[in-house]
Formats: sequence, structure tokens, C-alpha cells
Amino acid sequence: MKKIEGGVTSPKGFKAASTAAGIKYQGRTDMAMIVSDVPCRCAGTFTSNIVKAACVQWDMDIVKSGRPMQAVIVNSGIANACTGEEGFEACRKTAGALTEAMDIPADTIAVASTGVIGMQLPVDKMSAGVKDMAGKLSDSAQAGTEASKAIMTTDTINKEIAVTFEIGGKEVTLGGMSKGSGMIHPNMCTMLGFITTDLLIDKNLLQEALSDVILDTFNMITVDGDTSTNDTLLIMADGLAENPEITEKNADYDTFYEALFEVCRYLARRMAGDGEGATKLFEAKVVNAKTKEDARILSRAIVGSNLSKAAIYGCDANFGRFLCAMGYSGSVFDQNDVELFFESSVGRLQVFKMGVPLTFDEDLAKKIMEQEEVTIFVDMHEGSKEATAWGCDLTYDYVKINADYRS
Amino acid sequence: MKKIEGGVTSPKGFKAASTAAGIKYQGRTDMAMIVSDVPCRCAGTFTSNIVKAACVQWDMDIVKSGRPMQAVIVNSGIANACTGEEGFEACRKTAGALTEAMDIPADTIAVASTGVIGMQLPVDKMSAGVKDMAGKLSDSAQAGTEASKAIMTTDTINKEIAVTFEIGGKEVTLGGMSKGSGMIHPNMCTMLGFITTDLLIDKNLLQEALSDVILDTFNMITVDGDTSTNDTLLIMADGLAENPEITEKNADYDTFYEALFEVCRYLARRMAGDGEGATKLFEAKVVNAKTKEDARILSRAIVGSNLSKAAIYGCDANFGRFLCAMGYSGSVFDQNDVELFFESSVGRLQVFKMGVPLTFDEDLAKKIMEQEEVTIFVDMHEGSKEATAWGCDLTYDYVKINADYRS
Repeated sequence: MKKIEGGVTSPKGFKAASTAAGIKYQGRTDMAMIVSDVPCRCAGTFTSNIVKAACVQWDMDIVKSGRPMQAVIVNSGIANACTGEEGFEACRKTAGALTEAMDIPADTIAVASTGVIGMQLPVDKMSAGVKDMAGKLSDSAQAGTEASKAIMTTDTINKEIAVTFEIGGKEVTLGGMSKGSGMIHPNMCTMLGFITTDLLIDKNLLQEALSDVILDTFNMITVDGDTSTNDTLLIMADGLAENPEITEKNADYDTFYEALFEVCRYLARRMAGDGEGATKLFEAKVVNAKTKEDARILSRAIVGSNLSKAAIYGCDANFGRFLCAMGYSGSVFDQNDVELFFESSVGRLQVFKMGVPLTFDEDLAKKIMEQEEVTIFVDMHEGSKEATAWGCDLTYDYVKINADYRS
Repeated sequence: MKKIEGGVTSPKGFKAASTAAGIKYQGRTDMAMIVSDVPCRCAGTFTSNIVKAACVQWDMDIVKSGRPMQAVIVNSGIANACTGEEGFEACRKTAGALTEAMDIPADTIAVASTGVIGMQLPVDKMSAGVKDMAGKLSDSAQAGTEASKAIMTTDTINKEIAVTFEIGGKEVTLGGMSKGSGMIHPNMCTMLGFITTDLLIDKNLLQEALSDVILDTFNMITVDGDTSTNDTLLIMADGLAENPEITEKNADYDTFYEALFEVCRYLARRMAGDGEGATKLFEAKVVNAKTKEDARILSRAIVGSNLSKAAIYGCDANFGRFLCAMGYSGSVFDQNDVELFFESSVGRLQVFKMGVPLTFDEDLAKKIMEQEEVTIFVDMHEGSKEATAWGCDLTYDYVKINADYRS
């Protein structure tokens, strides 16, 4: 597997475009579109929030129906959630605009939205945006990058990645983009994420790989504990790499799985580190837990605690907050088995050992915590399973951004 | 039932004292003590966090053993959690100091701590504090008030209440104090809360009443979603009111229950409104839910959401965030059955009706949200059960307080 420059337009057969449709933001792009030359096999994972946006329900229908997916239209600014029948009509009309422009069947066109909940989409602006984008689709890396910027809301950096690997002598490419920032606490899915590939693979295996990979990637990040109404992760595979089709879990499947894992992990970490108001990436690594699920629960509880996040922001080695979060996580363990360390690029420091707090060098602790990526390393001494979760610090800016989001 | 001036020293037979022991804070009191003239029947509820402070385990032992309780010693500044065997030794020595001073058996003396996790208590200072307090115990209202101040950490106001009611022609008094502020997300208990009464009641009924009352009072508040290692609520009943003993769930029990509910509700609401950095009380009232548990889960999810809390701070009527929080709460419902209103002392405004967002007067919404107590009223139209939860807004000051708590 090799990381290359690029994103969703890197795999063969995929084009992208973006436009400033004026949906809510002014003076910036707010719509993006990915279109495949041919119908794709697709898979997706979606929010577990039972209040699902209209577009989520629209996309779930495509993924579950077994129909191919050939395009996805995304807007930022308005979420199209809690919008009743009018919200579904907006999905229909948005997809319909692309059908009109490019003769792609509407029921193979995914739509995705992110932004304010409880507002209706301006359908005329959306349709105009789709037509504009249809006229300027491009397979350039630049077009993919611009698309990854158009889907941003309060994100401060765009997130994209592309990797290549070989299957049966053929070069296969996997590209992805995502947006995160606030209302980030994915559960069985992520915020908006779009992955393209020219791999030829059985549709069920594609879904299985995606559903499995998110458990240790997108589902392990949190910004604020709020699971969105709109979380959507889609993958489209057009098969143009002409590799021998992957129809079983063989070595080829493993190669693909590894690449998909890396793409999702990269995007997830970038989303965590770029959480609303965040100044740093906050990682919790739990090792030697009794079960995989325990390791996941414990690491997520640590990065999800407001008090832990505030301590990370303040570079305060207040490790009791991490133990407290582990204690209320729902996982059962004995605090007398636990060891806890702070880690970053400048060093590693143990602060808690088998139930007893250690005296430690506060200056070194502060130095470790001042880095841009800080890890809490926890050894449970109760088994052999591990998991890593990613979050960010809780800052004044998080409050500022969210106290006045709509205006 | 009548509310009177006073607190934990109001019931017959209870005295209190406080002192500046210099445990962590300087220039303020940081220890308090409540002592009963006679051994009391007692009940308690404790944190569900499996990382329990040493003092929580100490108190649980008294409550569960069936032994009487005659005193409780409280310190603020250090939590005595994650402190290993040395932490238990601190409990033993603290109680032992009171035994020495007043000849009260150590195994009937509760101890409670709040503050930094993972630091050892300075036992010599604690013992000196106990001896000092033993010499100045008083049944004055002033002594109770001073005790309620000594247990504060980042609280900005002390919380105490006293009520009287009549049982069998005898006046019974119930007094209480509590502290809250941060790491507040009680689960089967509260932060530190101490209730005294001169009521004569069967011990099992006392526990049953307390365990039941907290479900709709202390367990319905949240400040930051962090369930503490130290949550402790104790009630001591010395029987000196000389009422006919309550031994079954009769009208007398109901009278007591109602008074206990009011005391707990009052303290809980005060704790929520005085959450760390809070500028206002944020209440969520859910009516017509399918089950009581659904009503509780939904109302707690609303006040627990960081995004909802930030919107309340910013007076931003971004109601989609409340619906989003309800959606990920774990309760199952149909958004097309839901109505949502903003309420405060200046008015009431509907913003969402049966799945559809309403156009509403933004100026009125802002005016409603600018008040010191703001309520989100949700009608589920799915049953007949209701619940109310209390929280506070998320502010810059919450971050400030918690980014630099230890120093």
C-alpha cells in the first residue's frame, strides 16, 4: 500500500466538482458532487440516531435496495433533518436535477447534507448548483480537493487521502474525503465521509469490510458526545481497475481491508484533531483489556469526558479524571490492576500504578501535554485486547462556535 | 409542609461545625461535621462509578451493615479517590480522631470527600480539624450554614434547606445541604448531600424513600456528563421528634416522602443552576412519553448535550440540537409525534410540531432564552408519563475552571 497525493478523484472513473450555491454560507463553495463514469457497487453506514435526516433515509434506501450508486451530491449549511415531507421532496428534486443534466437515474444518486437541523433546503439553489457542477466535472486532483473543501462547515482543514495497492497484478486506488468538526460522536458510522475506489469487489464484501473497519476508526472518535442526525459514510466501487473480482475473504480482500482501514483511520484522526475549537488531538490507547469491547468503551470514555478534555486543553496532568471516566464507562474492572501514562512526542510519564497515584515530575507532564498530539496510555492488566480512541480538547472556542452557530 | 429558615441543624438533636484545616484551599473553611446527640437510623445512595473513592466504600459499609450513624465528617479539596490502601487508612484515622474527641464509635462515623482525584489526604490536618470542630459544635442555624459553605469546591452559592411537617401531632423537621458544581452527572446518587431529620422511621423505609426520591431529583441533574467517583447522599434520622414510628407506607410515610422529595428537588435544582461556569438553569420537561423511563432518558439527554447547552448559553433557539439529543438518547420514538416549545418567565413559544419545523418569532425566542431559568418543553404524544431534568449552560467559564483546576 502506498499513500499518494489526491482524494476521491484519484481512482479511475471518478470525477468531482463543487460550487457556491449560496445555501447558507456566502462567498464560499457549499456544494460538492462526485460522479462515476459507470454505475458502482456501493456500501454505507449511517447514524444510529433515530432522528435521521431525510437524506440519510434516502441514501439508506439505495444501499439496502441493492441498486448501484453512480453519484453523490453533498451540501453544507443546512442538514435537511427534522424537515418532514418537504425534506424528502428536497432529496428527490436535488437528485432529479442531476438526472436531467446527465441522464443518471435518480434512484442511483445519493444526497448528503450537513448544517443546521430543522431548516428547509432552498431547492431552487440546490438544483442550480447541481446543473452548474454537472458542467464542470473533472477527474483532476484539484477537483477532488475543492470538493473536500466545499463540504466543510466549522472544519478548519479539509480532509482527503488516497492510497494505491496491487491486486492480481493490477493497481487499485482508494480515495476518500470527509468532514467533521461538531456534533461528532459517530455510532455505527461517521459524519460525512465519501470513499471512492476502482476496485472490483462483491457488494456484500464491500459492505462487510466497511462495517467492520468503522468499528476501530470512525466509531472511535468523538468531539462532543453528540451523535448527529446526518452521519453518513459511503463507498463507491466502479471496478475499473480490472482486478480479478474479490468474491471471498482471501489475501486480496485482506490487502483491500488494510488499505480501507488506513484511509478511514487517517480521515477519522484528522476529524478528531480538527474538532470544533480544538487545539490538539487527544488520543486514548487502552491495552490488555479483558475484551475488545471493553477496550473500545474505556478508550472512548476517556476521550469523551468533558473534564478530561478540559484538562488536556489546560495541560493539567489531572489523571484522576481519566480514571473517573473509565469508572463510569460501563466497563467493569479493578482500579488496582490499572497503570496510566501520559505520552507525546517529547516523552512518556507514568502517573498511576496498580491503584496507587505516583509522585511525578509536573514540569515534564506539562511539557508532554503541550504537544499537538497527546496520548493517554492505559494498561488494564486484565487480558490482551486493545483499542485506540481519538478526540480533542475542550476549549473556549468550542463554546464560542456553538453558542452562536446559526447566526 | 412548610419551608423554614435553616439546614442540617434544624431538626432536633443535630449539631454542626466547620473549620479551615488547610487541606488544599487556603483562607477558607474546608471541613464540616454533622453530629447527632444520639445514634441515628441511616440510609444512603452512592455513585455508580466503579472507581469509588475510599470514603464512599467506607460509608457504604456503614449503611449496608445496619449499624447506626451518628456523625459525618466532610472535607473539600481532595477527593480521596484512586488512593489505594492509604486512602482507607485516611478514613480510619479521620473517624478515629472523632472517636477520641467525643467517644463516638468510629464505625458509626461517615466520612465524605470532594476535590482532586488521585491525591492523598493530609491525615494530620484532617485529625486536627476534627478535634477543632468537636470543640465548637452548635445547633444554631448559623453553624449549619457555615457547614454548607465549608463543603463547597467550585460552587458559587451554598445549598441548604429545611422544612417542617406534622406526623401524629408531632412537628418533624427535615434539613439538608449539598454541594455540586463539576463532575456532576449523578447516577443512583448525587454529589455530596447530607440530610438530617428528627423523624422516627423504620430504617428500611428510610432507605426505600431515599432511593426512590433520587430517581426524579438528584439523578435528573447533569452539569457535564461526568459521573463522579465520590457521589454520596446520606440521610440520618435520630427519632427525637417523638412521632409515632413510621413502619409502613401509610399516610405518614407519604407526608414524609413528599417533604423529602421537596428537599431533594430543591437541592438538586440549585446544584444544576450553579453548575461550573453556569449562567442559567436549563430545564427539560418531557410529557406524554410512553414510559417513565423514556421520559427520564429523553429529558436527561436534552440537558446533557454539549451542543444544547452551548445554544442555551448563546440564547440561540437552535431547537434541532434538542431533537438530535433525543434521537441518540436510546429512547425510541417517532419524530412525527413530537411537539417542542421554549418556555421561561416571559413566555412560551412553539418551534416544532409533529415532525415539521415552524416559522417562529426569533426575537421572542431570544427574549425567552435570556432569562435565568429556561425550559424546553417536549410533548411526545405517545403516552402519559413525564419527567423533568435539570442542567445548565456550557460557558467559557466551564472550560476555564476545568482547564486549570488543580493549580
